[in-house]
Amino acid sequence: MMRAVVWNGQLQFLTDYPVPEIPPGWAGIRVKTAGICRTDLELTKGYLGFTGVLGHEFVGMVEFCENSRWIGKRVAGEINAACGHCSWCRKGQGRHCPNRTTLGIDRLDGCMADYCVLPISNLIEIPAGISDDRAVFIEPLSAACEIFEQFPLEGHERVMVLGDGRLGILCAWVLSTVVSDVTLVGHHPEKLALAAWNSVKTAHDGHPCSGADMVVEATGSATGLAQAMTLCRPRGMIVLKSTVAADTPINLAPIVIHELTVLGSRCGRFWRGLTLMEQYPDMPLESLITDRFPIDQAIGAFERSAQHTAIKVLLDFPT
Amino acid sequence: MMRAVVWNGQLQFLTDYPVPEIPPGWAGIRVKTAGICRTDLELTKGYLGFTGVLGHEFVGMVEFCENSRWIGKRVAGEINAACGHCSWCRKGQGRHCPNRTTLGIDRLDGCMADYCVLPISNLIEIPAGISDDRAVFIEPLSAACEIFEQFPLEGHERVMVLGDGRLGILCAWVLSTVVSDVTLVGHHPEKLALAAWNSVKTAHDGHPCSGADMVVEATGSATGLAQAMTLCRPRGMIVLKSTVAADTPINLAPIVIHELTVLGSRCGRFWRGLTLMEQYPDMPLESLITDRFPIDQAIGAFERSAQHTAIKVLLDFPT
Repeated sequence: MMRAVVWNGQLQFLTDYPVPEIPPGWAGIRVKTAGICRTDLELTKGYLGFTGVLGHEFVGMVEFCENSRWIGKRVAGEINAACGHCSWCRKGQGRHCPNRTTLGIDRLDGCMADYCVLPISNLIEIPAGISDDRAVFIEPLSAACEIFEQFPLEGHERVMVLGDGRLGILCAWVLSTVVSDVTLVGHHPEKLALAAWNSVKTAHDGHPCSGADMVVEATGSATGLAQAMTLCRPRGMIVLKSTVAADTPINLAPIVIHELTVLGSRCGRFWRGLTLMEQYPDMPLESLITDRFPIDQAIGAFERSAQHTAIKVLLDFPT
Repeated sequence: MMRAVVWNGQLQFLTDYPVPEIPPGWAGIRVKTAGICRTDLELTKGYLGFTGVLGHEFVGMVEFCENSRWIGKRVAGEINAACGHCSWCRKGQGRHCPNRTTLGIDRLDGCMADYCVLPISNLIEIPAGISDDRAVFIEPLSAACEIFEQFPLEGHERVMVLGDGRLGILCAWVLSTVVSDVTLVGHHPEKLALAAWNSVKTAHDGHPCSGADMVVEATGSATGLAQAMTLCRPRGMIVLKSTVAADTPINLAPIVIHELTVLGSRCGRFWRGLTLMEQYPDMPLESLITDRFPIDQAIGAFERSAQHTAIKVLLDFPT
């Protein structure tokens, strides 16, 4: 039995959840720290109909693995458990494998528990120089890096990022490593102040300039796309990062009239996030941690995470 | 005074509408035939808040022009009247000029009248071998060709076109000149039968196969995008062609989850439509003309055009 944060129509902290079995080719990981993501909050509103252990951002130690070289390693893990055999997997795009399950999101118990399991091929070892509190950002940082994988930015583009939450700030930081003109648009002065790393400029909602070559929608709100349409130049690109449970009325005509491209963007490759962390040791990831709770206070941690003054909320696993 | 089909909150046929003045650099065209487009029907539901003479698909004769070489020429005309000076115009993208007006759509009286006016640079001469009834399709055919201008198809892609209306059929035909695997999906057997030109396959709505590399949404319905999402493979492309007046509730999460690209696509360059017409004299454009009305029966023509058994409805201008 183990501790676990479970969503089954209500959010529960359990102490008697069964320890997961380890399929062949998978590893069992003792979780050290987990992060709460907006997707977790959406799941607790019914997004994707998930039930089970929540959580997909973590750092942990491998305790069980058929390949002994992994035992005792400190790791993070890519969240999509792909079949490894289909045409998507053969192309190295297991993130789109139709047979995949996804940690804490789709038919695979997540990491807000003493143990989680993942395919060995999903693991990435955390170098000694990177603290747990930085390493727990590998998942969202890699998700931000996914934009590079999908669209070749040249550096001279004018980019706006909408949303001063955790993902918006990370997207702005990541983009600023390639593009010099990045503006984060939000409406929380204290978050905008925090976001001003590297060349990132910030602007308060209302009327930021329009005409951006690329607008990254990371508001976590169903109305973000409509705002992005007003900020994007004709034939420009809107990157959709938010996954939202709601069906929202939206007028799509501006996409056609201005021939905009809307690019959905999800998980990234973990080596990208890890590489960026090592390249930019001054990227103030830890400054985004506004709160941390022991796992047995997970209910309160979720409530806190939903408040607009929270940025990243972590769960620790005291023994 | 002239005959004109006017939208001003209600659809009216007028016989005393003022003949338009001709600005410097513009031409005055006597309209021979005009087509009714779905956009016209949307405008009469309030789309874009347009008022004035409707119509943007036409063939006519140049009667007034400061450049005498155009007088008496049979022409069609690109519908965006651009400023010619801004950075978009200098790039050859007058279709996105922020100062543009648009024939029968945005602050410029349209072609459902005895006379319309357009910048001389918008005119394209119709070769003698192309009948009026074919030439009137240059505008929508060029709009279908716009997909080629935006995205380089290689020919091996699996393409589905949603919507067996006029634009859907034209998109399927145009795409089939480059891509061998094109399926038109609709729910009107008689229209699907008509659409089977070249290598175009047809499928009845319900459950066509999914997994398309590209899905062209030309249903003219606000629910088309949701259907397109179910038919498109991960990381595939949805081309949005329909402009719809309504705000429709839609769940955008599949765009993010499957990292789809949604590409808005509007007007095309007329030389593309004309070139295709000349290359494919067997493309059965005329077969799409289900009805034609004299201009004084325009109200009935609009009613007919909204019926699902109509494909292309033309207006003629008997003297």
